[in-house]
Amino acid sequence: MTQETLLFDRVVIIGLGLIGSSLARRLRRDNLAGEVVGCDLDEETRILAEAMEVTDRAVADASEAAAGADLAVIAVPLSAFPAIAAAIAPQLAAGAIVTDVGSVKMSVFDSLSQEMPAGVHVIPGHPIAGTEHSGVEAGFAELFDERYCLLTPPEDADESAVARLVTLWEACGAIVQRMGMAHHDQVLAITSHLPHLIAFTIVGTAADLEDDLEHEVIKYSAGGFRDFTRIASSDPTMWRDIFLDNRDAVLDILQRFNEDLTALQRAIRRGDGDALQKMFARTREIRRGVIEYRQAD
Amino acid sequence: MTQETLLFDRVVIIGLGLIGSSLARRLRRDNLAGEVVGCDLDEETRILAEAMEVTDRAVADASEAAAGADLAVIAVPLSAFPAIAAAIAPQLAAGAIVTDVGSVKMSVFDSLSQEMPAGVHVIPGHPIAGTEHSGVEAGFAELFDERYCLLTPPEDADESAVARLVTLWEACGAIVQRMGMAHHDQVLAITSHLPHLIAFTIVGTAADLEDDLEHEVIKYSAGGFRDFTRIASSDPTMWRDIFLDNRDAVLDILQRFNEDLTALQRAIRRGDGDALQKMFARTREIRRGVIEYRQAD
Repeated sequence: MTQETLLFDRVVIIGLGLIGSSLARRLRRDNLAGEVVGCDLDEETRILAEAMEVTDRAVADASEAAAGADLAVIAVPLSAFPAIAAAIAPQLAAGAIVTDVGSVKMSVFDSLSQEMPAGVHVIPGHPIAGTEHSGVEAGFAELFDERYCLLTPPEDADESAVARLVTLWEACGAIVQRMGMAHHDQVLAITSHLPHLIAFTIVGTAADLEDDLEHEVIKYSAGGFRDFTRIASSDPTMWRDIFLDNRDAVLDILQRFNEDLTALQRAIRRGDGDALQKMFARTREIRRGVIEYRQAD
Repeated sequence: MTQETLLFDRVVIIGLGLIGSSLARRLRRDNLAGEVVGCDLDEETRILAEAMEVTDRAVADASEAAAGADLAVIAVPLSAFPAIAAAIAPQLAAGAIVTDVGSVKMSVFDSLSQEMPAGVHVIPGHPIAGTEHSGVEAGFAELFDERYCLLTPPEDADESAVARLVTLWEACGAIVQRMGMAHHDQVLAITSHLPHLIAFTIVGTAADLEDDLEHEVIKYSAGGFRDFTRIASSDPTMWRDIFLDNRDAVLDILQRFNEDLTALQRAIRRGDGDALQKMFARTREIRRGVIEYRQAD
């Protein structure tokens, strides 16, 4: 592969978890960047990243890692963004692009853009991809294939910078879609944040049962519960930050959910079978839509 | 296979959906019954059952189907049980066993036992098995392999009858466990009924969003929502009956869930990250338990 196909000279990926390490693997596998620098606070992760050749090199310090990078991808829990933004801002190459893979976009844009110098382009991003596993060993180069990647550039974004980032994600196999930040946070509140909140809650409710009953709940989980345990095994810190950063949208959709649940609860208490059946029947249409979009397994 | 290996002379399976037709297929495949009679109100189902040789014959009338059967398995929504019990009771062979595959056990035992004549053994059952598909075409002989099948005989049950039913389910590949009816209904309320209720609700909440937003919710469902759509695509009539028949246990666990959800909601509103992380961290233990029990995919 010739020099001309390189999309960036030096990419720094901060956070070598599932998403960050998968992106690094893809960039190296397909020779999309001149150098892929990894950054992670965890020493074992850095050793593994270098041993598995996930990155060209892996360092602990974000400032050092970002030196001369023309693309920085932040792939850590949201609460770490302000410190990372401050550390990398003075180190980036002129005209560099800063993006991320976080699940909330308004707060990300605020924390990144207030640190970056003039000429550095902040373009938040969010690949809708993942598995129930986490960590550098869980990543793989094909993670983004045929998955959506949402980009939420500000209205006054530099269009050539946006185009470069679109090209990168498309080269990684993703289907790139552009949307507004506030809209993103609203859509994700229902497609991802509320489902996780509910799953964490129901698994927590089960964890509070008496020991012998909890034991049986685990044993007989095939009736529906196990799907919730999979969702609820996601990283606690990452999810804490998502709920704090997308508080308004999450509380809004949670309010709607609570109203609907109360209506179902009331129908059960009153023995109103017609109301129950009517509510259950319409949810099948949504499932058909999900299957049509090929987002079902 | 010789006559001695037959466990029952004539088995009638009432309701040829996913579960009923899978059981029929297994009985025929492994020659476990002298004759497998299917019963279904739906003509197309009966035609398919005979064409695919799921049953030896398939009839519409439960009374006719049950004539001379020494085992009756009821595999229809719970609300149909009283009428079916009345129809088959006078037709069964002396000493026959009547069982079912329903998701609630106390109500099933009541509706079956009050119709059956002396000498007929009512032993409720519940194989914890299924897929998201339904109907006679969705069934397959291996559905119960390595899945739990719960039997909830009454305390004064005929132990030789219970043993025969255990042998049958084990021959179908299931791991049979015995438990009390009330306990079953309590365990299933949390492992299956509450998860379904929650999934129906959240998918319903999404269905009420404005059209363009609903469209995007479907499109970007990979973030967690799609797992709920799979659960919520289950049969509406079957689930209506489950919630009505297990009302007390479902309302009890729903009350606990609501309290826990309110606590999470409060933590989000107050920005209490420590409380959120603490609640999320403990749910991972439950997931590990599910995986150890080999109940995860």
